[in-house]
Amino acid sequence: MSNALKDRPAVGIVIGDPAGIGPEVIAKSWLTGKLHEACRPVLIGSAAAMERALGFIGKKASINVITDPSKVISDLADQVETLDILDTGRMQGDALPLGEDTAVGGRVSAEWLEEADQLARSGVFAATVMGPISTGSMKMAGTLDKVVSPTPGESYLLLISGPLRVAHVTDHIPLREVCDLLTKDLVAVTLRKLNAAMQSWGIAKPRIVVAGLNAHAMGREDKEQIAPAVEQARAEGIDATGPISPDTVFRQCIEGRYDIVLAMYHDQGHIAIKTWGFSGNSAIILGPPYTHLSVAHGTAFDIVGKNIADHTMMQSAIVTGAYLAAGRGFPAEK
Amino acid sequence: MSNALKDRPAVGIVIGDPAGIGPEVIAKSWLTGKLHEACRPVLIGSAAAMERALGFIGKKASINVITDPSKVISDLADQVETLDILDTGRMQGDALPLGEDTAVGGRVSAEWLEEADQLARSGVFAATVMGPISTGSMKMAGTLDKVVSPTPGESYLLLISGPLRVAHVTDHIPLREVCDLLTKDLVAVTLRKLNAAMQSWGIAKPRIVVAGLNAHAMGREDKEQIAPAVEQARAEGIDATGPISPDTVFRQCIEGRYDIVLAMYHDQGHIAIKTWGFSGNSAIILGPPYTHLSVAHGTAFDIVGKNIADHTMMQSAIVTGAYLAAGRGFPAEK
Repeated sequence: MSNALKDRPAVGIVIGDPAGIGPEVIAKSWLTGKLHEACRPVLIGSAAAMERALGFIGKKASINVITDPSKVISDLADQVETLDILDTGRMQGDALPLGEDTAVGGRVSAEWLEEADQLARSGVFAATVMGPISTGSMKMAGTLDKVVSPTPGESYLLLISGPLRVAHVTDHIPLREVCDLLTKDLVAVTLRKLNAAMQSWGIAKPRIVVAGLNAHAMGREDKEQIAPAVEQARAEGIDATGPISPDTVFRQCIEGRYDIVLAMYHDQGHIAIKTWGFSGNSAIILGPPYTHLSVAHGTAFDIVGKNIADHTMMQSAIVTGAYLAAGRGFPAEK
Repeated sequence: MSNALKDRPAVGIVIGDPAGIGPEVIAKSWLTGKLHEACRPVLIGSAAAMERALGFIGKKASINVITDPSKVISDLADQVETLDILDTGRMQGDALPLGEDTAVGGRVSAEWLEEADQLARSGVFAATVMGPISTGSMKMAGTLDKVVSPTPGESYLLLISGPLRVAHVTDHIPLREVCDLLTKDLVAVTLRKLNAAMQSWGIAKPRIVVAGLNAHAMGREDKEQIAPAVEQARAEGIDATGPISPDTVFRQCIEGRYDIVLAMYHDQGHIAIKTWGFSGNSAIILGPPYTHLSVAHGTAFDIVGKNIADHTMMQSAIVTGAYLAAGRGFPAEK
């Protein structure tokens, strides 16, 4: 890979459910020019949906439709004023849904995601970014299983909100099961995976702080499982600290003392991220062999087409994906 | 009680550990005049400690020492330029500690707290506010058990940070025990207690939102215990809503949709409060038959005497106590 390509990696952007605000916030982000500064963006989805979105936001731009996945790089216009999109015709003959859950929206959301995944696994895309999808549509289409669901020991959800970054050892697991699941081995494996991912993103020695499980990190699991896992990680050369009291650990990350928090369960991290209120949220799934992000907001069916949807979260997710895939670390805050 | 007295209730302010920043942040708060606008403040502690604190902050004020608890109201100067203090001589002959844990500091912290409690229980004080104490000092003195520790079903910790207010069903309980402890009855009893307290503070129909236990409030306990408790509370005329996904419920309170969140466990509420970052934190223990607050910061031994300690949290705790005891609701944010 030449330096120019390394600096501007190809990033696949799945437009998300065509009925939602995905197409319009992606079009807005594209036309700022900020995406091209960081990467060579490539949309995956419906050219007709993007055309309609340009109308919603009152902007003119040409659309370069690529129908053959093998030509997705060679046929790029790679210009701010031209939307490059891989459209393999998944919606041919379907009415373009708007503002509501439909089976066709759920079906194509999953198919586009799979196209992006294949191109990333074959090395064409250095990262993929998923626009807002609708779980309602995907349930109707029976495709919800195509969205990667974090599985402890294999894949992890990482949320980013400015300087507050949180990886989760466990995700949608009942709290009473979490207590038994959190073994020394699981936490140690997660620390290794997280450390390696952060290094691949260009953070040479990531400072990882580990939240305890119980109040003030003073419980049995904190002492018997989490503390030994942190010690083992340190013995392996990982800059891990903890377990730290869960109610103070997130602020320490916000204040810059650490690069990331490792949270023990879903709400521990999600409460911190969503209550803090910085708006540039994006989510990474650690697990696939490439960098995979998604935007942290939904399809917002109630405001679709009204040109009031805020595109900054989407833009931030794409730029973050580009930076990480290029090994440039997390982009500085605005 | 005359209207004037109801508007300016007598509030007992325990100065906290004399070695910490309590005396100086309390002196600073007093001299702003803001306490007297809201109440008739009465200090409980050491006049010598307050005299020293006035020196630290470079302010002159006279000190009106009351030695007899039965004269704590009749002998008040009730003026901003005079510190009224009940000093029953608990430190006579002791060196005044500074900037470190001492057994004497721990002993008097507990004794002053008990004096305030007795005066509140006998109706002299409408509320008490506790300055920063040191658990280290109190351990040395063997008095740590004098600080009320919330016990599910009997007493509850309520944290306040501007518009974000959170009561906790459980406090320092291992997370795996919380899951079994959270019965329908416990949640229903807590809702009743919380509703009655809020009403006594002047909020006629408090809007209480209940957090779930599990991610997205989608677990067994959410359906089988918490939801029926909320239903029962509603049947009793309490304006309770929930269970709501724990990661979104706090922001709904910040945005004003509810008056208070009922959190299921310590970290659920504490992560939200401490990560959000509004600085006016105070804590209430629901349980005693009067309004009992404490300031949310510690003794800050490292900065004591340097005139850099921020007094606004202490001032906010006292003013909040005064408002609630007078049935005026929570004070508006600055």
